[in-house]
Amino acid sequence: MAHRKLELAWETGSSKTPEAIPERWYPAMVPGAVQLDIAAGENYPPLAYGENWQQYRWMEDCYWTYRTHFPHPDITPDEQLLFISKGIDYQFSIILNQKILLQQEGMFTPVAIDLSPALQNENELIIIISPAPKMHPAPEDRTQAAQSVKPAVSYGWDWHPRLIPLGIWDETYLEVRQKHHLHSVELQYTLSDDLQRAEITCQAVGNIGKGQQFQWQLTDPNGNIVLSKKGQFSDDALQFSESLSAVHLWWPHDHGEQHLYRSIFQLLHENGDLADEHASQIGFRRVKLVMNEGAWDAPSEFPKSRSVPPIQIEINGRKIFGKGSNWVNPEIFPGIISAERYDELLDLAIKANFNLLRIWGGAIVNKASFHRLCDEKGILIWQDFPLACNNYEDSPEYLTVLEQEATSIIKRLRQHPSLAIWNGGNELFNNWSGMTDQSKAIRLLNSLTLQLDPDTPFIMSAPLMGMGHGHYVFRDDRTGEEVLQLFGNARNTAYTEFGVPSPADVDILKKIIPSDELWPPKPGASWESHHAFQAWDQITDTWLMQSLIESYFGKSPDLTTLVENGQLLQSEGYKFIYEEARRQKPYCSMAMNWCFNEPWPCAANNSLITYPTREKPALSAVGQACRPVLASIKAPRFTWQAGEDFYCETWILNDAFKETDIGLVTLYFIMGSEKIKMQDWQPEQIQPNQNLQGPAVRFPLPHLTSDRFQIAIEVADHPALSSLYTFLRRSD
Amino acid sequence: MAHRKLELAWETGSSKTPEAIPERWYPAMVPGAVQLDIAAGENYPPLAYGENWQQYRWMEDCYWTYRTHFPHPDITPDEQLLFISKGIDYQFSIILNQKILLQQEGMFTPVAIDLSPALQNENELIIIISPAPKMHPAPEDRTQAAQSVKPAVSYGWDWHPRLIPLGIWDETYLEVRQKHHLHSVELQYTLSDDLQRAEITCQAVGNIGKGQQFQWQLTDPNGNIVLSKKGQFSDDALQFSESLSAVHLWWPHDHGEQHLYRSIFQLLHENGDLADEHASQIGFRRVKLVMNEGAWDAPSEFPKSRSVPPIQIEINGRKIFGKGSNWVNPEIFPGIISAERYDELLDLAIKANFNLLRIWGGAIVNKASFHRLCDEKGILIWQDFPLACNNYEDSPEYLTVLEQEATSIIKRLRQHPSLAIWNGGNELFNNWSGMTDQSKAIRLLNSLTLQLDPDTPFIMSAPLMGMGHGHYVFRDDRTGEEVLQLFGNARNTAYTEFGVPSPADVDILKKIIPSDELWPPKPGASWESHHAFQAWDQITDTWLMQSLIESYFGKSPDLTTLVENGQLLQSEGYKFIYEEARRQKPYCSMAMNWCFNEPWPCAANNSLITYPTREKPALSAVGQACRPVLASIKAPRFTWQAGEDFYCETWILNDAFKETDIGLVTLYFIMGSEKIKMQDWQPEQIQPNQNLQGPAVRFPLPHLTSDRFQIAIEVADHPALSSLYTFLRRSD
Repeated sequence: MAHRKLELAWETGSSKTPEAIPERWYPAMVPGAVQLDIAAGENYPPLAYGENWQQYRWMEDCYWTYRTHFPHPDITPDEQLLFISKGIDYQFSIILNQKILLQQEGMFTPVAIDLSPALQNENELIIIISPAPKMHPAPEDRTQAAQSVKPAVSYGWDWHPRLIPLGIWDETYLEVRQKHHLHSVELQYTLSDDLQRAEITCQAVGNIGKGQQFQWQLTDPNGNIVLSKKGQFSDDALQFSESLSAVHLWWPHDHGEQHLYRSIFQLLHENGDLADEHASQIGFRRVKLVMNEGAWDAPSEFPKSRSVPPIQIEINGRKIFGKGSNWVNPEIFPGIISAERYDELLDLAIKANFNLLRIWGGAIVNKASFHRLCDEKGILIWQDFPLACNNYEDSPEYLTVLEQEATSIIKRLRQHPSLAIWNGGNELFNNWSGMTDQSKAIRLLNSLTLQLDPDTPFIMSAPLMGMGHGHYVFRDDRTGEEVLQLFGNARNTAYTEFGVPSPADVDILKKIIPSDELWPPKPGASWESHHAFQAWDQITDTWLMQSLIESYFGKSPDLTTLVENGQLLQSEGYKFIYEEARRQKPYCSMAMNWCFNEPWPCAANNSLITYPTREKPALSAVGQACRPVLASIKAPRFTWQAGEDFYCETWILNDAFKETDIGLVTLYFIMGSEKIKMQDWQPEQIQPNQNLQGPAVRFPLPHLTSDRFQIAIEVADHPALSSLYTFLRRSD
Repeated sequence: MAHRKLELAWETGSSKTPEAIPERWYPAMVPGAVQLDIAAGENYPPLAYGENWQQYRWMEDCYWTYRTHFPHPDITPDEQLLFISKGIDYQFSIILNQKILLQQEGMFTPVAIDLSPALQNENELIIIISPAPKMHPAPEDRTQAAQSVKPAVSYGWDWHPRLIPLGIWDETYLEVRQKHHLHSVELQYTLSDDLQRAEITCQAVGNIGKGQQFQWQLTDPNGNIVLSKKGQFSDDALQFSESLSAVHLWWPHDHGEQHLYRSIFQLLHENGDLADEHASQIGFRRVKLVMNEGAWDAPSEFPKSRSVPPIQIEINGRKIFGKGSNWVNPEIFPGIISAERYDELLDLAIKANFNLLRIWGGAIVNKASFHRLCDEKGILIWQDFPLACNNYEDSPEYLTVLEQEATSIIKRLRQHPSLAIWNGGNELFNNWSGMTDQSKAIRLLNSLTLQLDPDTPFIMSAPLMGMGHGHYVFRDDRTGEEVLQLFGNARNTAYTEFGVPSPADVDILKKIIPSDELWPPKPGASWESHHAFQAWDQITDTWLMQSLIESYFGKSPDLTTLVENGQLLQSEGYKFIYEEARRQKPYCSMAMNWCFNEPWPCAANNSLITYPTREKPALSAVGQACRPVLASIKAPRFTWQAGEDFYCETWILNDAFKETDIGLVTLYFIMGSEKIKMQDWQPEQIQPNQNLQGPAVRFPLPHLTSDRFQIAIEVADHPALSSLYTFLRRSD
């Protein structure tokens, strides 16, 4: 076939200046990061253990040189040798045989350079990478990233150590290809109003030879060829349109099939031989953000402001409730994220009944395999641009790099049916960031997405007015409010960040906290480095929150108890918030906790998964709360005294678009082996996508013989819809 | 010189189809409107009187043909004959000697067509204008304009009859010019951070001959040449940059001088003779929208939404309070608006101490002379795009015309230093419009302004979150709140629309309402056609509001009394709102009433000016409230009972950026000839741009012998700062 790849053996080393040659070279893993090569070469101890991560800190300020040598490859006069890299982090020069071929700032813009003109018998290819970009030398925090398109998270976050990756972070190789080849083939489409027909436009651009032909075909999800086209190029670019009828739509997994069509575009030589081929997947869906139901009713009083902006996802004409989480970088060093890791993590998202992931803008834009997997698994993607919690000011230099990087990101992701929302960045319009609707970076992203991907919604930042971010604790000790009250009384169009922390499992803690520090947890050393203390400046013992945990459960006798109790709070807290957000449907349209995963093992974190793929108990609790249909209760608080009335609302929550039989629903009080029936309710059916509120329940609490009790709401004929809630006894 | 104009004699006539030749021709005024030509030709009675306007209604659905004949002009082989029109309303074809030269939709995109290739000895130039665009045949209201860039107001508004202008509405002529000429010369600049230096970029585009030279010079406001440049064109476009130091900045009139520089760019033949010349004015200012003071403090509670967007104007680094009004079309038929009319109206804005006018998007974008006058008089302009109170949906056809028209508008206005804000349109994000931040029209306007005029702020619509529109009455009878309570308790970042209606002066009413209808006013005839009844669907007797007026003043014995009382309510209501908005500074940054002027004589309206230029008493009341410095009171209500305590706050309001001496301030109670001193206050000085709150005043009201009394707050040493307020006696 037309292309062949040549893998290269790289080595890397550091220097104080870009001109200096490194004194020592280390074998380099590509893709990877210079930090990992040094760690391997110098036998650094495990990064995640104790304070070992600090050993890596010096590397952010060095120049790094990647070097490789290769002989003149065996290529014909009709062929070229290209250097291809899908991502080099962050500012770099590419030099072949001492000639600078490219200088670039930006890790998301791929590189494809024809090396042929500068090839010699023996070749040296060098990539010099500049130190991590910093807006100012101090303070050493995220604000250093405020004039670059380097993800801010690695400058230090409340769940991320200060470790700034540098190096080649995505697939990189030499490629021999025909001089006459395809640069790009892109399919765009518009769906008819009734979603039955797609007008498909195919754009092919290449370096096309005289008399070259093309043939294209589209096969449906069953493998049948449904469209095909042949023709001749008249110049280097070509465009044609075809109409596809009886379209099989792409849906998120909880609403339908993930129908994917396959496009194969072939460039043929004049004699009919294959010169180049471009294959891709395409899925057809219409995605919109439409007004949340009821949002047009406000404001109603003069002086009148505007209604809140829409955040209700409508896919293929169906307004769906977005259930999901905030996805962060699964590794500190994105170079080593594999498709397998993505696959495992995305399967956990499916397990949690998530249909939506927000790719948070403090971290990287994911690699190609991530988006392919989301297409295939049916998970909608909300993609932030790489701006977060900073004031990215209007300098021409910054805006130039942002335009280049955003353009690359949009072009890479826009083909994916799973892409549902573009977002300018995280929390930009709040006082800790200080950007506004007038910031040119945001206006530029609006403009670029409109030009390059006009049919995917764009929001300027999150939260928008009406949406809620936070809280990030089970109980706010300033107000005394638990999540049960805070969210029970809130009224937002979407909850796109909310967190309840928990410690990691004990076996993981033992792997990252030296045994002499393990119990009791203390700030100032490894617990703190792993985000158990001083992580979030608003509360000193975040994210361990031992004092809050012990205010509910009493003093922990040991680490195991502390972890269990913290994990219980997280599970019950998250369960309540997801279910409450669903109760607030249709005004509320989305619930996504902060956060899904983490890039290294945090001793405590709001995440549902401990690095790399360890489920916390909260993951399955959230999965229960996100079942398409379930019985649910809304209780006003977590702790109760013996003798007082327990009371709650009863609900059937339904996000499924079909009528469902319910039948007998019974509320039970459970303590130990005791199970007392408290109330019956007999809803025959629920309507598609409609919640149903049942009777309010109130009963005197029996004598509480244990420090915790449970309430079950059981559906006799459909036990899979039943739910169970844990509450605590209070004695004050 | 290079260009010479040839005026044409036009005639017009209507037909049912575009192909049909009109049966009757009428002399046509250009610029003008077909309606005016028919009215003149057919001797229609005065438009504004009684129901005469209805006689014009039929014309909106006709095709209209403009026709002119001219002989082959005397031009040399080095010359061209151009047809130039700055505006043709709305959808049209231009045909020379039966050849279609142009088809266009859009009244804001100028036309310049080289007729030379199609000229004959005798020439017939025809413009065929299509019927007014309508999204649907019924209902006949503003929603018909929702898929065009035709201003919606003429489809009927609460102060505008249903009359849709069609025709040539801006300067239109033939022009002989050199084949080698300038198309455009544009200056753009960036100011240094300290505002001392401007980096000026000059871009000239033309049809340039071989060896042609240019010379350019910039003269300062005193006539001194401060920059000059000579050189040669190498192709049809040229760009150079020059640095100007010691820049004299342009300011709005209440903050500084309106320094304007003059640019003259000359195109020279190879032999040095003048081939073409382009002269323009330029003013240097930096304008931004920055966060309103205090706006970053919210939101403070979880779940947290975003802070409100900024609407504080900062000009040349100074945060100024925007005082102004909403400007509407000064004529139903914009073709007959003259520079003189603009001049008179803008002088009235200066008289009202306004520094800002919002050009409301329901109406036209003004002609060139308007913007020149605003530059010269120092009035900031907030320019809406032509979208108002409709859902302008995402059709490709609409978006194409919008892009063309918006591009033309931006290019025409961006040179003006008075231009301060671009706004996507009026009240688009409210339920009576139904657009959202996702609407492509708004995203497109954001994108175009960023590309073409990046340093002028853009807002998507008004109101934005935090801003207030309304109320539009002195008292809301649903809530019982007067503007004194409503605005006294409001907290908005800007009040960009608020209205208090009043009847027009009696002599004007007599000119528009037939004498047999004049008293008492009744719905169903001329009062209603002139917006005294059923104008605003929320209240049936808007805008006359006789019942509300009489609820304060008792039954009106005659028209004169009704008018006087209504005008008093308007004056006192507006005065309160402007002063209250200023009291709310710095969180509040802007006050603009609805509306400044009107396009024909309304029997009653919220306007400050009755058509064409008659001041209502409210204009000078508002002028008092908008003095840079004044003494003010804040009273809680308009009516008081004898014997009860009168109470109010006392204030010095100061928008001037200098310290000002005040001295003795005294509050007086005035009834008839009685004037009783109630309170002294002795503020020595006020700080620049700082309001100063004085003592709260409370005193028992004397026996009220009259149905009204006044409170004066007088500044002994600076009587120009004193203020006077009228209140009513209540007896219930």
